[in-house]
Amino acid sequence: MIATTPTPPYYAVIFTSIRTDYNDGYSDMATRMVEMAHLQPGFLGVESARTELGITVSYWESPESIRVWKEKAEHLIAQQIGRERWYESYKIRVCKVERDYGFEL
Amino acid sequence: MIATTPTPPYYAVIFTSIRTDYNDGYSDMATRMVEMAHLQPGFLGVESARTELGITVSYWESPESIRVWKEKAEHLIAQQIGRERWYESYKIRVCKVERDYGFEL
Repeated sequence: MIATTPTPPYYAVIFTSIRTDYNDGYSDMATRMVEMAHLQPGFLGVESARTELGITVSYWESPESIRVWKEKAEHLIAQQIGRERWYESYKIRVCKVERDYGFEL
Repeated sequence: MIATTPTPPYYAVIFTSIRTDYNDGYSDMATRMVEMAHLQPGFLGVESARTELGITVSYWESPESIRVWKEKAEHLIAQQIGRERWYESYKIRVCKVERDYGFEL
């Protein structure tokens, strides 16, 4: 689903990744992290897709809400295991959404 | 491939979409638009993935380079046909990338 987000400005974290062939635990972790993100203060929504590249964009009210989520204990563990096992490479870009518009049939 | 982008700040356009079942011409258009984007002044890179949701993130030097690309004639035609045939819905978010970091094995 396309995330329903408020009128800008708000913030986006673009997480682009390439996975390893190691799958054990990956899907459970990914599901759990999305569940946890939904409970975080300032969380606005998330969008995700994967072909070869995976792209997950999460939306947040403020840079502070992004920082708190980044440092959350269970998320830190997921990040560490991610670097050890699940990801060959990734890039995280923290952005301020300045304007948005859309289209619906 | 994860896009190689310069030190922030730079700009990102997050294009999130849901497709219709109508495929005629879609793949050619998508390929052509990526080729054209690469030739635009200020274009830095692009990342794309699709599961149910499609996410394409293009990176740009400035808001002005994004505006010029948006108004380019062949791109305007693609946008119009997109709304008429290929997309059920989409959302475009124009962002300033404030910081980034990454990981590589």
